[in-house]
Amino acid sequence: MENFADVKYVLDGFLFVIMGALVMWMAAGFAMLEAGLTRSKNTATILTKNITLYALAGITYYFIGYNLMYGDGNALSGSIGPVVAESGGDYPTMADFFFQMVFVATAASVVSGTIAERMKLWPFIIFVFVLTSFIYPLQGHWTWGGSELGGLLEGFSDFAGSTIVHSVGGWAALAGVLLLGARKGKYSKDGSIKAIPGSNLPLATLGTFILWLGWFGFNGGSQLALGSKDDIDGIASVIASTNMAAAAGAITAMILTQLIYKRVDLTMVLNGALGGLVAVTAGPDLGMNVAFIDGIVGGILVVLAVPFFDKLRIDDPVGALSVHLVCGIWGTLAVGIFNPDVSILAQIKGIVVIGLFVFIASFIVWYILKITMGIRVSEEVEYEGLDVHECGLEAYPEFNKINR
Amino acid sequence: MENFADVKYVLDGFLFVIMGALVMWMAAGFAMLEAGLTRSKNTATILTKNITLYALAGITYYFIGYNLMYGDGNALSGSIGPVVAESGGDYPTMADFFFQMVFVATAASVVSGTIAERMKLWPFIIFVFVLTSFIYPLQGHWTWGGSELGGLLEGFSDFAGSTIVHSVGGWAALAGVLLLGARKGKYSKDGSIKAIPGSNLPLATLGTFILWLGWFGFNGGSQLALGSKDDIDGIASVIASTNMAAAAGAITAMILTQLIYKRVDLTMVLNGALGGLVAVTAGPDLGMNVAFIDGIVGGILVVLAVPFFDKLRIDDPVGALSVHLVCGIWGTLAVGIFNPDVSILAQIKGIVVIGLFVFIASFIVWYILKITMGIRVSEEVEYEGLDVHECGLEAYPEFNKINR
Amino acid sequence: MENFADVKYVLDGFLFVIMGALVMWMAAGFAMLEAGLTRSKNTATILTKNITLYALAGITYYFIGYNLMYGDGNALSGSIGPVVAESGGDYPTMADFFFQMVFVATAASVVSGTIAERMKLWPFIIFVFVLTSFIYPLQGHWTWGGSELGGLLEGFSDFAGSTIVHSVGGWAALAGVLLLGARKGKYSKDGSIKAIPGSNLPLATLGTFILWLGWFGFNGGSQLALGSKDDIDGIASVIASTNMAAAAGAITAMILTQLIYKRVDLTMVLNGALGGLVAVTAGPDLGMNVAFIDGIVGGILVVLAVPFFDKLRIDDPVGALSVHLVCGIWGTLAVGIFNPDVSILAQIKGIVVIGLFVFIASFIVWYILKITMGIRVSEEVEYEGLDVHECGLEAYPEFNKINR
Repeated sequence: MENFADVKYVLDGFLFVIMGALVMWMAAGFAMLEAGLTRSKNTATILTKNITLYALAGITYYFIGYNLMYGDGNALSGSIGPVVAESGGDYPTMADFFFQMVFVATAASVVSGTIAERMKLWPFIIFVFVLTSFIYPLQGHWTWGGSELGGLLEGFSDFAGSTIVHSVGGWAALAGVLLLGARKGKYSKDGSIKAIPGSNLPLATLGTFILWLGWFGFNGGSQLALGSKDDIDGIASVIASTNMAAAAGAITAMILTQLIYKRVDLTMVLNGALGGLVAVTAGPDLGMNVAFIDGIVGGILVVLAVPFFDKLRIDDPVGALSVHLVCGIWGTLAVGIFNPDVSILAQIKGIVVIGLFVFIASFIVWYILKITMGIRVSEEVEYEGLDVHECGLEAYPEFNKINR
Repeated sequence: MENFADVKYVLDGFLFVIMGALVMWMAAGFAMLEAGLTRSKNTATILTKNITLYALAGITYYFIGYNLMYGDGNALSGSIGPVVAESGGDYPTMADFFFQMVFVATAASVVSGTIAERMKLWPFIIFVFVLTSFIYPLQGHWTWGGSELGGLLEGFSDFAGSTIVHSVGGWAALAGVLLLGARKGKYSKDGSIKAIPGSNLPLATLGTFILWLGWFGFNGGSQLALGSKDDIDGIASVIASTNMAAAAGAITAMILTQLIYKRVDLTMVLNGALGGLVAVTAGPDLGMNVAFIDGIVGGILVVLAVPFFDKLRIDDPVGALSVHLVCGIWGTLAVGIFNPDVSILAQIKGIVVIGLFVFIASFIVWYILKITMGIRVSEEVEYEGLDVHECGLEAYPEFNKINR
Repeated sequence: MENFADVKYVLDGFLFVIMGALVMWMAAGFAMLEAGLTRSKNTATILTKNITLYALAGITYYFIGYNLMYGDGNALSGSIGPVVAESGGDYPTMADFFFQMVFVATAASVVSGTIAERMKLWPFIIFVFVLTSFIYPLQGHWTWGGSELGGLLEGFSDFAGSTIVHSVGGWAALAGVLLLGARKGKYSKDGSIKAIPGSNLPLATLGTFILWLGWFGFNGGSQLALGSKDDIDGIASVIASTNMAAAAGAITAMILTQLIYKRVDLTMVLNGALGGLVAVTAGPDLGMNVAFIDGIVGGILVVLAVPFFDKLRIDDPVGALSVHLVCGIWGTLAVGIFNPDVSILAQIKGIVVIGLFVFIASFIVWYILKITMGIRVSEEVEYEGLDVHECGLEAYPEFNKINR
């Protein structure tokens, strides 16, 4: 260490690895959230999906995804081949890879919740392979990769990925759930909707806290540099804003469920916090007041979107579409509204182009999986629980369960 | 980055955000600890209280608390208004705000445990609003804010808040529990005391580990600067001492419960570790031997204080008064004993002045809440569990429970 | 802060405390993993063992272990006495102590899993005292302490402790389990083996995620310096490789259990990830491809070793021997294979010398404990569960349990 450029290099690299570690922790958060919000007979399967999707994303993004997203290429895609650590850059290549890798895993984590309790394990894993190898990196190449899809996405602004990560996961999940259908018994022919409560709310709460903490890395690390006064000012502001949006989303959901249902619904409070976090992710650099509004609207949207998807008979056991897709769109639009340097038209264009691409590409992949190996477990397996059939074990084998 | 002052600025700011993130994690620790140490019929409610109190603290401390504590004002209080990010200071304003905010949340977390299993949700939330907006920031203004209450608190020394955070939470909780009363069935007319075991000890243990980890940020970050050799020496020593006190508290409680009860009581080991952590918080900069003594005495105090409060018929389901109030007082006194530069009289004065203020102010707020909206759930709700009535759901809806 | 040497000093110290905090978090990971993989009647005891072993390690390593390992001495051992913070060194003494302390705790954590569900609490604690005070520090003195045991261990290379930490824990556990015997009912006289499923797989999964995260500190911090471009390049590469090995281990175990058992076994996926992590620990600085191979072989070894130990009637409830001992040996050998600067003979010599020493020393300690106070609970206690007898409480007192 001999000059200030070296200090900056070290600090920038350290930001990536520390914040990346926090984002990796979000994989545990999704696992706990989804295990807590589903039924105990399917818990081991959802845990298996969550840990293997994170593992797989780490492998595919190294061998394929990273360079497809950031490598030199054309307007459509980057280059082919694994990550090569280069010297002479402005930051350690592998630190950047590590940080970007945990983002693609986050996108994949969104999917597992929506399709929980009735999708087979292996088609899900194959979908994750395609999502993390191709679908996510391609749209990432057009945005953070800088290609702008030949100018079509010029001016699109998404600081840490309300659209690029969270809505992408949401669109992929939506395509899957449309082909998968609802859980048996969720929607009756007479139009009634059965509430299927999550089996372990402490786990779901723990998962939310983990995600909240990890989001400081997600948004704070997306400053992409630490080694200047402006950068640390930015990081500090981003993290404070991230916390504010989550807090506002949680409190909004708390008040709203009290007003609507005369009771505070803990699962809505959790999803309200997450909705605020997703919303602020596109513009956590716009200050505390914008974050406050991001979070309030995010909390409202979650509380309204959950019953709305039920009305459409789109069965999303953990509310991931409401949180990641809906609030991801809102947060991206909010940047167009609150940041005078960003055109709302560019934001809408980005939302639509990326949404269409990810939805259609995902739909095709899900469809091929459906007509080949099948994506849904049999009625018998669904009734008895996926765990015994897909994983050969139970999540809580000793606890006597109430038959529901 | 062009000079060493810039490097120091970046490092100091980074310390605040990283250590602040660790302290935020303590909110999850309190949630898990309290969910584990209470009965499953009240678990969703205690989870709701814990996540909403953290959320609310983040909002109130931004709009009101921070400047009341640190803004220019008079001996009694700082200024009114939200945090404004300033440039030209020695560190990023928002980094300092974020770090200080997670401290006020910690103080509020102490309260939720003591009043668990019989307090209504909304009066608790209103109390948290007052505590985090006014009560905590005012006494914080007199101490860390520097006003010294016109000299009355001159010489009072509390490195990271044994008194200013933990005992403050404890006094607020004590005032509440005196007006709230014990859980039904806890104390019989014949003087017997019913043990009400926690429903999920893995969660309680996880919570303790989370708090232990978060405390490295709590005490380590309270060095308030990273950018010099003395600062990193100090941080390293503080973190090692923090670990030592927790370890000593846990092992002391282990040995003591074996001697007294002929069995090692896990919940006492957990609270022993926490008691050691609270005790060392006032003086984690005094070296390993002081930390060792802090922890041993903390562990002893916890093991003795839990039955002592029961004798007084003060019903504290998680032992928060024993941990945070009693060990907070001990830790603050210990600085007067072991640090030759600190007068024990100044420590006693601080403990008494802050204790009186927080207890009386909290008592008034709790009392107003009690005579207006009521703070206690009905006997029927308490019997059936708060979750179904306050949250409209159950924490573990599928697990068949033994009727207790 | 006046020169670049100061910057380096601060950054190196900060690396130790931040990465040390991540490794401390692994203690929580082991606690959750082991609590999840054992039966609920023994859960409180395994939690007690895990938190007290971490606490005890922090005390003994301060007063005895650290200087025995790193203090000036002779080829066999360092010096006697507690850690003394020195000024004038290249990094803060207490930061190094803190980082090294969490490593010894990790070694002790390996033991608790293997001897779970039938060992008494106190002899285990006494063994941990000897392991963390003497056995671990002595072999650590020969390796990381630099004595090379008078040249015998010259050229032995173990970056972060596949052998020095993980296999050491494994050898200590193996010695214990041989004297302890299997759980009642595990192995029948007719040769059949009873599967005893873990009681709480979400906890086990959480524990695995915690360990995975903590391992970034374990291996990343073992770079031992942050303050240069080479160091941050190294740390970034080490952390990316650590993630790759875990990912490869998890996916390998997933595929392999599908092929062998026609179902994906979640507990094998978890142990596969951990096996990959242990394997890469000796050489996480050798690049992504080596890490990929480390992980694949680690995953295979775990899937094969678990039934292998069962065939030998060595009863290891959580698979710790398969993960830490077997993959620790593999990872150490792999450095000899893949690093041209390291001789495989030196690696084998290190594995054998350290293994023999730790196994024999541990065997003697366990044997003395067995013939004096006894190490195994009575059949009645084992049948009814250790929790009620050793801890006087139950982990899940309200949940109705299926009699198994």
